Amino acid sequence: MASSSSPSVLLFLLLFTIAATAKTSESLSTVFPRAIHGSALKQVRNAKKPKPKVPFKTQYFPQLLDHFTFTPKSSTIFYQKYLINTQYWTHGAPIFVYTGNEGDIDWFASNTGFLLDIAPSFRAMLVFIEHRFYGESMPFGKESYKSPETLGYLNSQQALADFAVLIRSLKQNLSSEASPVVVFGGSYGGMLAAWFRLKYPHVAIGALASSAPILQFDDITPWSSFYDAVSQDFKEASLNCYEVIKGSWAELDAMSAKEGGLAEVSRTFRTCKDINSVYSARDWLWSAFVYTAMVNYPTKANFMMPLPAYPVEEMCKIIDRFPHGATNVSRAFAAASLYYNYSGTEKCFDLENGKDAHGLHGWDWQACTEMVMPLTCSNESMFPPSSFEYKEFADECTRKYGVMPRPHWITTEFGGSRIEQVLKRSASNIIFSNGMQDPWSRGSVLKNISASIVALVTKKGAHHVDFRFATKEDPDWLIEQRRQEVEILQKWIHDYNADLKQ
Amino acid sequence: MASSSSPSVLLFLLLFTIAATAKTSESLSTVFPRAIHGSALKQVRNAKKPKPKVPFKTQYFPQLLDHFTFTPKSSTIFYQKYLINTQYWTHGAPIFVYTGNEGDIDWFASNTGFLLDIAPSFRAMLVFIEHRFYGESMPFGKESYKSPETLGYLNSQQALADFAVLIRSLKQNLSSEASPVVVFGGSYGGMLAAWFRLKYPHVAIGALASSAPILQFDDITPWSSFYDAVSQDFKEASLNCYEVIKGSWAELDAMSAKEGGLAEVSRTFRTCKDINSVYSARDWLWSAFVYTAMVNYPTKANFMMPLPAYPVEEMCKIIDRFPHGATNVSRAFAAASLYYNYSGTEKCFDLENGKDAHGLHGWDWQACTEMVMPLTCSNESMFPPSSFEYKEFADECTRKYGVMPRPHWITTEFGGSRIEQVLKRSASNIIFSNGMQDPWSRGSVLKNISASIVALVTKKGAHHVDFRFATKEDPDWLIEQRRQEVEILQKWIHDYNADLKQ
Repeated sequence: MASSSSPSVLLFLLLFTIAATAKTSESLSTVFPRAIHGSALKQVRNAKKPKPKVPFKTQYFPQLLDHFTFTPKSSTIFYQKYLINTQYWTHGAPIFVYTGNEGDIDWFASNTGFLLDIAPSFRAMLVFIEHRFYGESMPFGKESYKSPETLGYLNSQQALADFAVLIRSLKQNLSSEASPVVVFGGSYGGMLAAWFRLKYPHVAIGALASSAPILQFDDITPWSSFYDAVSQDFKEASLNCYEVIKGSWAELDAMSAKEGGLAEVSRTFRTCKDINSVYSARDWLWSAFVYTAMVNYPTKANFMMPLPAYPVEEMCKIIDRFPHGATNVSRAFAAASLYYNYSGTEKCFDLENGKDAHGLHGWDWQACTEMVMPLTCSNESMFPPSSFEYKEFADECTRKYGVMPRPHWITTEFGGSRIEQVLKRSASNIIFSNGMQDPWSRGSVLKNISASIVALVTKKGAHHVDFRFATKEDPDWLIEQRRQEVEILQKWIHDYNADLKQ
Repeated sequence: MASSSSPSVLLFLLLFTIAATAKTSESLSTVFPRAIHGSALKQVRNAKKPKPKVPFKTQYFPQLLDHFTFTPKSSTIFYQKYLINTQYWTHGAPIFVYTGNEGDIDWFASNTGFLLDIAPSFRAMLVFIEHRFYGESMPFGKESYKSPETLGYLNSQQALADFAVLIRSLKQNLSSEASPVVVFGGSYGGMLAAWFRLKYPHVAIGALASSAPILQFDDITPWSSFYDAVSQDFKEASLNCYEVIKGSWAELDAMSAKEGGLAEVSRTFRTCKDINSVYSARDWLWSAFVYTAMVNYPTKANFMMPLPAYPVEEMCKIIDRFPHGATNVSRAFAAASLYYNYSGTEKCFDLENGKDAHGLHGWDWQACTEMVMPLTCSNESMFPPSSFEYKEFADECTRKYGVMPRPHWITTEFGGSRIEQVLKRSASNIIFSNGMQDPWSRGSVLKNISASIVALVTKKGAHHVDFRFATKEDPDWLIEQRRQEVEILQKWIHDYNADLKQ
């Protein structure tokens, strides 16, 4: 059921971070400008995707603009959208809440089939709550993105408080205050789910955080690990493939630097219109390789784009099969085409235009304020080496939004170094699920912390693959991962109910 | 050493809540108006108190106005005051932080002798952080209390974030990031300490929360328990005493209702000037009985006022010794005079004037926004029966500040009903210390929750008596309570250091 749906927003927005951080790094600033990279991203967004029907009712909750001040403006009400499914629920049974991330909530709901798959056996209610400033949940309507005066209310702590207030109200209205609540989220949504369990343990009895890179802040995780992991995926598929891609960037630069070079690049990339900058081609390749590594799923899927099973291997087969003497750029283009045109319907590629079909651009603001995740490319990666310079990053955010990032705030608010020791002694009931094909896994929790804060790690898994609808082609390790998740959820609920009876 | 100092702010502000809530109750609104009650409180504040010299350096930390939004205004910097003592500290040793509450921090520091008493044996650094909007820590200088536009930034979550940011910065500047931090607080400061441990376990390894009524919100604790507990203290001292006080209110009303009644009340109460309202006399009595119950210490002390050991018993002795036929009002006045004039230096009493010597009036705002603690008087209490009507309370807050209370916010943010179960499974390292003479104890945690979330309860203790400087007269149970606290602190630090070595 619906294995062709695409919960790509999750990593989408995180990938947006890559753009944001890479932009400001010294060496990347000339080769990887945000605006152009952004347009390559937008093209992906613009891809037509079927919107599967999902069995949810749409509701709107009157939410406070600002939970953490009491200025007159703070009490402004906006309407927060949420989706609800009660068809399996009975009074007192669990409530499973998806802590929405950076996009419209219908998209998340239609792409998190796991919850619909498991709801019947838990008799669970499902609630997908839209994150403020995304989708229809706009505190200032069409003016919401107008300025830092309005955008200032977009951040993770306000979002967590929204969830808490909404859940409490919902349970009260249902007269089911004792129903156990479990929160679920993937990618940034997974970070929110984990943080929600840490900050609101009285509201949620546990959290399943899939592909949640909560350690990708400050210097907890090496900054180069993300792109090293992307590169590793390709290297494992084929050393030659990795080397071809690594060699393609300089070739592309040289091609474009010649007289008439951009026209040649345009021809090579089969663009619908001649491109205005070589960065468009570079970003187009870059995005294809990064996203494909993230969605290197074991089954045919349509997450970011329709792709075959293990698409990294397929890309590398394309590269490896090229006749001797072909350029690295032409091979890289052919490989990237798998990502953009697996269906074979595209006659040409539009590298510089696109629109934000799922309302994701708020992530760029978040990356410029609290979600500062520095990412660099090491010499060992298949990408051009790059560093991260905070000052340039801050200057860019000031220029673009009139806001200064607070790069240490997330780790101050939610914990950073030695977080494992802290969680071990003062938290419980969190699953961190990760697949090692996913480069974001390097910034997540990969080892069990305690008996109830566990890491479920699969070698061949990719970006929150566990949250997808089950399919007949699912490999055993994926079936086993989901089985373990269900077993742990059952234990949390059992323990909670046992406590209740005391 | 300094047993004559007075950490009265702690309960002061909490008592302010009483005024705020009582004001809005139907039956009290005519007998216990805030403004007049407020002036009775102010008189207490105005009492001359010696300011003991304390071995602290004063520092100022550049703090963000708003941690939870990113509007341009949010990044305004103000200077937060803190006091620091490093004389016993060595690199890597513990840092004991007092999470300042609703008053200027010097006053707290000079009245929390316990930390100075134990610092040498822990080689601990002491840091007393002033709460925003109190003392010198005014985000908008003299305009800070001007309107809800400015006061809106005064609340507990911003205060907790202030503490987290300051502590992190301090440790970084000391290059002592691994130093274990323990937070301490009494009364509202104790609530902050406990909540800080819950929300920022990565910053503080534990919290000692003394007399912290974290359960005095919503309907977790019966609303009448506070005044029932005050009454219980008096009843235990003498049933006659309790009955005299209980009978005095109607007598006072009747006295004032006669022609020339206010003049008679003024004479009876030996006021310096004739009073304008009988409520002044009523509040004067009321405050004396409530405060004396709270500070019913086992030793002579100067907390709110200079008082003998077990002042409730002393008050009741005064009442009981009166000759037969004396009025209840005259007996009640004599008892209350113990509170206001134990030193015997007051020739007359000023019931209607006073000033806010310690900058405490911010609590009134806090009570009107998030710190909504409904308190009522049952028929069994020695006070006139009263109820709590939320609507009246909200109307009063709107009238006074232009702000609507958020009465369920504290329990949404920090937990409410069934909090014990939650803490048992997802928190650790908190001591809730309470003395049953203190009426606020009824809203605190009085039973052990887990091996590391413990309740230290003394039958004869009063409002955070454990935080006072040790004196030679301290009874065994108080010595034992402090000994247990030190032992638990040692265990937390030992466990933390053991974790570090792993």
